[in-house]
Amino acid sequence: MDELTASLTLARAPGFHAGIAGPLLQRFGSAAALVSSPPSSLRGAGIDDKLIAYLQSPPAREIENDLRWLEPSDRHFVAWGSEHYPRLLAELSDAPFALYVRGDTNLLSMPQLAMVGARNPTPTGSETAHGFATHLARCGLTITSGLAVGIDTASHRGALAGQGQTLAVCGTGLDVIYPRGNATLAEKIAAQGALVSEFPLGTPPHKHNFPRRNRIISGLSLGTLVVEAAVQSGSLITARLASEQGREVFAIPGSIHNPLARGCHRLIRQGAKLVETADDIFEELHALAGLLRTPTFLPQDDRSRRKPEISGDSGPPLDKEYEILLDALGFEPTGVDLLVVRTGLRADEVASMLLILELEGHVLSHPGGLYVRADPRQ
Amino acid sequence: MDELTASLTLARAPGFHAGIAGPLLQRFGSAAALVSSPPSSLRGAGIDDKLIAYLQSPPAREIENDLRWLEPSDRHFVAWGSEHYPRLLAELSDAPFALYVRGDTNLLSMPQLAMVGARNPTPTGSETAHGFATHLARCGLTITSGLAVGIDTASHRGALAGQGQTLAVCGTGLDVIYPRGNATLAEKIAAQGALVSEFPLGTPPHKHNFPRRNRIISGLSLGTLVVEAAVQSGSLITARLASEQGREVFAIPGSIHNPLARGCHRLIRQGAKLVETADDIFEELHALAGLLRTPTFLPQDDRSRRKPEISGDSGPPLDKEYEILLDALGFEPTGVDLLVVRTGLRADEVASMLLILELEGHVLSHPGGLYVRADPRQ
Repeated sequence: MDELTASLTLARAPGFHAGIAGPLLQRFGSAAALVSSPPSSLRGAGIDDKLIAYLQSPPAREIENDLRWLEPSDRHFVAWGSEHYPRLLAELSDAPFALYVRGDTNLLSMPQLAMVGARNPTPTGSETAHGFATHLARCGLTITSGLAVGIDTASHRGALAGQGQTLAVCGTGLDVIYPRGNATLAEKIAAQGALVSEFPLGTPPHKHNFPRRNRIISGLSLGTLVVEAAVQSGSLITARLASEQGREVFAIPGSIHNPLARGCHRLIRQGAKLVETADDIFEELHALAGLLRTPTFLPQDDRSRRKPEISGDSGPPLDKEYEILLDALGFEPTGVDLLVVRTGLRADEVASMLLILELEGHVLSHPGGLYVRADPRQ
Repeated sequence: MDELTASLTLARAPGFHAGIAGPLLQRFGSAAALVSSPPSSLRGAGIDDKLIAYLQSPPAREIENDLRWLEPSDRHFVAWGSEHYPRLLAELSDAPFALYVRGDTNLLSMPQLAMVGARNPTPTGSETAHGFATHLARCGLTITSGLAVGIDTASHRGALAGQGQTLAVCGTGLDVIYPRGNATLAEKIAAQGALVSEFPLGTPPHKHNFPRRNRIISGLSLGTLVVEAAVQSGSLITARLASEQGREVFAIPGSIHNPLARGCHRLIRQGAKLVETADDIFEELHALAGLLRTPTFLPQDDRSRRKPEISGDSGPPLDKEYEILLDALGFEPTGVDLLVVRTGLRADEVASMLLILELEGHVLSHPGGLYVRADPRQ
């Protein structure tokens, strides 16, 4: 059995997640070796009977179907251990074993802001989400949301309107678009961004899968912005997950007469950053700059340490890798791909570093994902 | 010279404030002794030449006028050292030497909430201020504000509408009502509450006197609630003063599209408590209950200690004085004056304690400032 087929088999195994996968893949050497091992070896590795039984008769038809689904060039399967598996997501204690992707897998590792909120927002709430997403996406942040109606839809649409990138995390298999009314939007996102799901193809909408999906929205992102939300709502679950994952939570306040402002107000009372303008988000991301330079986030108890004093507008002195990247970047607009070739850095590293360099005023972004060095004499 | 005339003389002395008054009154024994001492004694006490020169030729005509103004029974002059001088105001490093009062001097020492905000609020902002003031005044809090147009006016009016008590701190002499359009409101406040000023009679509106007036608004109050305010505004000055005085700051959020919400949002970012309902204010005052039982506030650095854990609905066990007050209070509606007679406690102590007992569910308030013991069997 080849490695892809073996990984697809594991992705459909009940209760199989990254926390189990890591040690087992290390022990057996590969997914293929794991999947084709005799029951005695599997039992010796501590694998439970349910999983052993599954591996003895895997769902061959579904896996064949998965392979067929993966044939077009925009389809991807990103399993634990793959270079495309996003580092921020890997930090989660309950990280998924694999993601099914339609679109650009590089987006998984790009600096993302999650935007979530009510399915029935006020007209102003929708406009606010659209406006923030457009502006933030133009500034180089990937806007991640859940393809739901309301704020999710406005956020995805805003990012697309800004010619920016957007990532939709689905609570269904990627061949089952939900809600159906967003099928056209989903196609646009697949073409200009990425659709992502941990749920195998064919998974229909299940109520309990949507809160699970939320941990991936927040887990892929540097922070989660809540636009309008009731006090009892999925958006507040996502915000809580973001906080538990050690990520930033941002919330937009509203009139005390707007019931959909109450969720945001609750978050602000609990310590979420009050956001009036996109600059409020960049300010916080700027403060996170030192953090983005390291591969992992500090645990949540150390949040206060995550806000280094920024002296002056130029930010802290640049690390060596940043100097290399700046040297690789000329005063001609240049894309991430070329910078990857020139520097030997990974695409996600280059993208994160460019965002930081832009926030610190060292580079300017141009339409079409191109960057130029800022003229220091200006 | 009698003591009142001497105190009125000192109140008009340039630069004379409570910080100077305290040691001097102690040294000379009385205001009359101080005012009639020869220049050599005054110089020996460290009094500067300007004040000595003033005391040699005090403005006799103005002081005569002050005495005439004080003749009606609703006029009062409350100098440093008087039993009516409010304890919370006495904590200020720049406390005024004296207050001119029209109305009920007892209000000076009642538990107060300052309500401030824009002079040009939105219609919703005015309604919000009016609604909060009505409800809070009904619950027994005295609403303190500055008699300005806009939020101040709405707050005073709301308190009056709730048959509650309200106190207006003026930036002019009390014989010079400003703004003139609030003359009728000022008369109502004098009749149902109190007009207060540190500025001698005849002081016209001076731009620089209004920020000084603000420190008295916040200084008389347990906390300051900002309803709608621009980022650069007198309301934010009052909030800063409240914070510096170690008092609570409350702010009502609003739409990010409302420029008058920005001042409130700034305060919330700086740590002000976000207020959606009157209960949010009572919750904080409840947490302050332990503090109110002591005569002084903790310094600002110790703010975290000011929020004891409240276990259950009944609050912490009652101190002895509270037991005495509860015993003095029957199941017949009873006013503060009678409780003062029965307990030997001061009126301001009784009022503070009743507020706490009400918050803790031990007493109920009735219209007209009457209280009854809550039936513990209910």
